[in-house]
Amino acid sequence: MNVIEVPDADDERLADYVRLRDVNLRKSLEAEHGLFMAEGEKVVRRALRAGYRPRSLLLTERRAAALADVVGTVRAPVYTVAESVAERLVGFDLHRGVLASFQRKPLPGVDEVLAGARRVVVLEDVVDHTNVGAIFRSAAGLGVDAIVLAPRCADPLYRRAVKVSMGAVFTMPYTRLDDWHGGLEGLRERGFALLAMTPAPDSVTLAEAVGDGAGKYALLLGSEGDGLSFRWMDQADVRVRIPMAERDVDSLNVTAAAAIACYELVVNR
Amino acid sequence: MNVIEVPDADDERLADYVRLRDVNLRKSLEAEHGLFMAEGEKVVRRALRAGYRPRSLLLTERRAAALADVVGTVRAPVYTVAESVAERLVGFDLHRGVLASFQRKPLPGVDEVLAGARRVVVLEDVVDHTNVGAIFRSAAGLGVDAIVLAPRCADPLYRRAVKVSMGAVFTMPYTRLDDWHGGLEGLRERGFALLAMTPAPDSVTLAEAVGDGAGKYALLLGSEGDGLSFRWMDQADVRVRIPMAERDVDSLNVTAAAAIACYELVVNR
Repeated sequence: MNVIEVPDADDERLADYVRLRDVNLRKSLEAEHGLFMAEGEKVVRRALRAGYRPRSLLLTERRAAALADVVGTVRAPVYTVAESVAERLVGFDLHRGVLASFQRKPLPGVDEVLAGARRVVVLEDVVDHTNVGAIFRSAAGLGVDAIVLAPRCADPLYRRAVKVSMGAVFTMPYTRLDDWHGGLEGLRERGFALLAMTPAPDSVTLAEAVGDGAGKYALLLGSEGDGLSFRWMDQADVRVRIPMAERDVDSLNVTAAAAIACYELVVNR
Repeated sequence: MNVIEVPDADDERLADYVRLRDVNLRKSLEAEHGLFMAEGEKVVRRALRAGYRPRSLLLTERRAAALADVVGTVRAPVYTVAESVAERLVGFDLHRGVLASFQRKPLPGVDEVLAGARRVVVLEDVVDHTNVGAIFRSAAGLGVDAIVLAPRCADPLYRRAVKVSMGAVFTMPYTRLDDWHGGLEGLRERGFALLAMTPAPDSVTLAEAVGDGAGKYALLLGSEGDGLSFRWMDQADVRVRIPMAERDVDSLNVTAAAAIACYELVVNR
């Protein structure tokens, strides 16, 4: 039987789950062990369905029944703890009561991710995990084929991104470029038109740029504050915008812009 | 001269700014005094531009120069405090260094908000202030004419909503229905087709529902978890969806759905 009751938050078998809100600690701990965290029943099930290998599951006593069907088949220890132990361990009230630690897989190569793809989103330096998660959710939901990350874009498998994505980070093919400076060239060589999103009024509208949609498009999105770097803007084939009203609002936030752009790029063609 | 240095976080002239993250305290304090908070230089300027009357401004010493032009003309006290005082007062590191307390205005009536409007967003029970702010930003940016809130929708002038909206809550005409049960009837009587957003696959696509866009449309959006209530769904003229891909993602989040729907409703017609 793989269900193990653990009475003590300091038990080293629970080390994967320690202080989940301590961003710096988590980043180094997760990098060192190649793990990531999934939270909530739905998201944990999606990670399993996507073939990620669990290191362990952690259930609070109140929620132990929620994953009863999974517990019977999963090949990893399932730790059950009291709510108070969970709270002391992770550092906040774990009201969802279901956590799992998963082993990461090696990221696929660019060739593998782009094979057969016609609609791709490329995130330069989106630094907020919530935004990365939200963009993955929209892109997956709307049918984008793949996502490519610049070297400094936030990690899609960080807990907050996983959660906000509702698990879309597990099913959306993605990889990360090693090379920021020259990385876009590889996309161009594979036949993608590079569309740089910007609120600048001297750009063309997304609908104009995509036209009848017969082609392969890579949509470039930049960081929350400053948008795309000069380098990437300069590398792009065309600068595209979402038409804005005149109402003292100068731009959309990056997740809204991404959702609209994916819709225009995929659904409307 | 209206600039007053205040050395002590307990000074009662700073009472508007106390414990900004204490949601319950803030809700009752702001309701009692009919005030709301704006944070950051850009947002404070937008509130002033939109004609809201400031009760006071609060600047940290480091940021006192940022609003120098405003300080000279605003008819309200401008308190300057040390960073440490600001942090003790508001309860977190106030790195933006600029806050203002404004007097609310009475909400306009439904007739006033809808006069001349052709594209309207109606939020039922969107409870998260971040989502309300993001939806206002997208709606304003894309050119929606007005927003109508159900009685239990979260407050657009709550600090977090104001901030996320980047001040769009000041320029977007909006009001709140008194009556949840019968409130939609008033929209229908004014000639609006009621479009209920849902991920349900047996609905029609938004593009089909809007057709050539010759008409007046009210887009109904429900709460984060459960979507629209049965009552509102039942009252709607048509249930509309955004077409989704098959990728183990069953819906978009409400801000992404709102952004796409506003785009389809306004920009694409």
